[in-house]
Amino acid sequence: MQDFLPVLRLLCGLLGIFSATLCVPLATSILGKEQLWADYALPMLIGMFAGALGFYRLRHCRQELQPRHGIMLVTSVWFLLPAFAAIPIWLISHQINAPIGIAPAYFEAVSGLSTSGATVLTSLDTLPLSLNMWRTFMQWQGGMGILILAVAVLPMLGVGGSQVFKSEVAGPIKDTKLTPRITQTAKGLWSVYLGLSILCFLAYWVAGMPAVDALMHMFTTVSLGGLSSYDSSFGHFDSALLETISTLIMLIASCNFALYFVAMRKRSLRGFWREAEVRATIGTLVIGGLIISLFLWWKNIYALPEALRYGMFNTISLATTTGYATADYMHWPIFAPMLMLLLSSVASSAGSTGGGIKMIRALILLQQAKRELIRLVHPRVMNPVRMNGDMVDNKVIFSILAFILFYTCSIIVLSMLLIMTGIEPVTAFSAILASINCAGIGLADVGPSGNYSFMTDFQLSICSFAMLLGRLEILSVMVLLLPSFWRR
Amino acid sequence: MQDFLPVLRLLCGLLGIFSATLCVPLATSILGKEQLWADYALPMLIGMFAGALGFYRLRHCRQELQPRHGIMLVTSVWFLLPAFAAIPIWLISHQINAPIGIAPAYFEAVSGLSTSGATVLTSLDTLPLSLNMWRTFMQWQGGMGILILAVAVLPMLGVGGSQVFKSEVAGPIKDTKLTPRITQTAKGLWSVYLGLSILCFLAYWVAGMPAVDALMHMFTTVSLGGLSSYDSSFGHFDSALLETISTLIMLIASCNFALYFVAMRKRSLRGFWREAEVRATIGTLVIGGLIISLFLWWKNIYALPEALRYGMFNTISLATTTGYATADYMHWPIFAPMLMLLLSSVASSAGSTGGGIKMIRALILLQQAKRELIRLVHPRVMNPVRMNGDMVDNKVIFSILAFILFYTCSIIVLSMLLIMTGIEPVTAFSAILASINCAGIGLADVGPSGNYSFMTDFQLSICSFAMLLGRLEILSVMVLLLPSFWRR
Ligand SMILES: [K+]
Ligand SMILES: [K+]
Repeated sequence: MQDFLPVLRLLCGLLGIFSATLCVPLATSILGKEQLWADYALPMLIGMFAGALGFYRLRHCRQELQPRHGIMLVTSVWFLLPAFAAIPIWLISHQINAPIGIAPAYFEAVSGLSTSGATVLTSLDTLPLSLNMWRTFMQWQGGMGILILAVAVLPMLGVGGSQVFKSEVAGPIKDTKLTPRITQTAKGLWSVYLGLSILCFLAYWVAGMPAVDALMHMFTTVSLGGLSSYDSSFGHFDSALLETISTLIMLIASCNFALYFVAMRKRSLRGFWREAEVRATIGTLVIGGLIISLFLWWKNIYALPEALRYGMFNTISLATTTGYATADYMHWPIFAPMLMLLLSSVASSAGSTGGGIKMIRALILLQQAKRELIRLVHPRVMNPVRMNGDMVDNKVIFSILAFILFYTCSIIVLSMLLIMTGIEPVTAFSAILASINCAGIGLADVGPSGNYSFMTDFQLSICSFAMLLGRLEILSVMVLLLPSFWRR
Repeated sequence: MQDFLPVLRLLCGLLGIFSATLCVPLATSILGKEQLWADYALPMLIGMFAGALGFYRLRHCRQELQPRHGIMLVTSVWFLLPAFAAIPIWLISHQINAPIGIAPAYFEAVSGLSTSGATVLTSLDTLPLSLNMWRTFMQWQGGMGILILAVAVLPMLGVGGSQVFKSEVAGPIKDTKLTPRITQTAKGLWSVYLGLSILCFLAYWVAGMPAVDALMHMFTTVSLGGLSSYDSSFGHFDSALLETISTLIMLIASCNFALYFVAMRKRSLRGFWREAEVRATIGTLVIGGLIISLFLWWKNIYALPEALRYGMFNTISLATTTGYATADYMHWPIFAPMLMLLLSSVASSAGSTGGGIKMIRALILLQQAKRELIRLVHPRVMNPVRMNGDMVDNKVIFSILAFILFYTCSIIVLSMLLIMTGIEPVTAFSAILASINCAGIGLADVGPSGNYSFMTDFQLSICSFAMLLGRLEILSVMVLLLPSFWRR
């Protein structure tokens, strides 16, 4: 285990930094005179102290990291930081006489940081503002983490190389050397994220959302997180204007942030629109939304204008893996929410904060599938898979296929575990799909009007695991099961 | 279309031969004095005449066939012969005052010939004996077709080459040159099938089944077909001895028939047991049965002896894609039938009459998945996939992965189609899974105590398509969608 001390050191460093961000709900709590400040201040100070101490004591463990160290680091970060983030949630739940256990608190924190947006808390409207602030702010941080962690934070802490890159983007994100150093890439992504956040906040605010709501919902829109401070989610505002703004921001945020950075530098969106993944993502989301809208109209659920309003917003929200709702779509024919949920598996880009398979993998798979069909009729024809004109190596295709294989098997195995514990199949399957895609909302009992509070600790742990599995792109967790991983 | 005349010729030949097999229900009908003989005799004579005429008129179209002709041939055979086989079913349903439409009759015939064993007919116990004979005899013929068609019948009719081989075994069946000529291989497989059939019939008969029942249930056991002449399926006999015999035959029939032929020739089963696929298939079936049995015991559904009896039989029956039932397992906790149904996707061998992915594909995929994980930690390690000691080529692996991809997507798309037409998700998904695996029995409304009679024509057509898709190993149907397939 000596071997993993450098990983532990970086973990301590990240814990220290992450603890400091508890100042946001702490400030909210103090300004709101909630008498809950100690629940934030105490974990914050302990976390900062423990993190700094560990980082300092292990200062001699700085040898060059191997790929497996990188995998170990991101996996432990994503599994352990939520445990810390859960502490204030657990403490406050006891203060406000709605105590939850350790597993639910961990679930809530995982759901926050992974930007899933599933929740075990009820009566959100009456929660202390600082707690809702922490929940939504976690998602915003999670979004930063998803974009930045593997690309920038790790190198900044001394972890080198693009091998680590794999852990968050085990697939085909373009290794474009945007700027000579990866840290600068990170700053670039971050500035786009920040810019979009400011735009989103202002738009919500100008369009009539109270400033605090605008802030919290900005947090969970740009991160495609989907948590809300209201039980009725985005439906609370009942404003077609706000829904339109939200839809546009979600569409923007579902594309690769690196492309925005490039576009900004080139002062042109031309290259952006030429990307196959951008077109496919936006196309799938808009056409998916239209199909659902027309289906609702055809089935006489709504008149055409309402069908378009509710169909587009809820479809794009779920398919981008955000998970806001403005209608209890479990009252729609089940085909609609099922299709919406299935879309969440593919309809966001690599390099965004969305979850699931990612559109670029789906595009490459589609071509690969066609290639195999052609090979059946014309065995000798060479027919390489191309993406934006570049040939895709067979190794990359194998890697994507492995991802899909593990993704599918994980969904089956984890759903069966939930079913074994007594959950009915549609709920179980959709809960796992919503978790692994980090979409948060499923069907039936975990649909838009339900939540995860009915689940046992074991069931919640499975869902927490599914969310982390999805966020870590599955393979980086699975690889820990290899005995050869642990051999030096 | 000129190009496909040789295919049409062979199709006519097969129609002629297949029509002749209507003599079995015809004889049954005459012996039983049912007054239904014309319903068999008429289609039989017309089919034989039309087939012979076509075969003769097209005698000049005998040029060498290309791979795509082979694909065209098997696809059209499997789609069109059931249409002919459906005629007596349709005719008789009107004679006995339980008329069914054309889509249900086609469904019933597809279900028979593909050895799925799903049914739209009700009150099986009161059907004319000749009709039950035809239904079960179709399955036995289907089993022969599955084993023989692509390997032997086509070459016998003048279609050469192992390219055609691919259409029924698009994957990794071992292209062992059992005997110099493929026709001899076919005879070999057929003799094994016939031997097992005789063994099965005698065992059923000696163990107490009436001779006619023994014959009909032999037809549907060795073909892993699962149709029964009783509404209560194999449960009608309520005999632990018969269930044990049936279980053993199903276990035997779920392995590769080519291996039995080799073992017979060598007079030794040693090589047989050394095959990875045999061990995995039998192992999965037996361990799967034990898990379900223990689960039922743990959940207090049965005492241990009953749990073993019902758990083993029903699990092995569904997992081998047979589909007999001796209990309405929809009354068991849903985990059990779901696991049984999932097992049906993998738990039979290539070269058997079972359906689904086939165990050898699953074994290769498992190794491929592990190889990709190792590559993540040790990018330079070469780690070829091996099967029984032989290296598996990357092309084969790509082909298997394409199969899995199409298999998964087909299940999703066809289930969603059923859901769109208003079927509830568990029924829809399990109906498609049961159809594409040719297992016949699903869950909920299409579970062991249900059947497919409630479905609309459109829904039945989707299920028929799923059965044929599964039987033709998906890719050989999908390839017809390629425009380049139709170009000369
Ligand atoms: K989400
Ligand atoms: K069957």
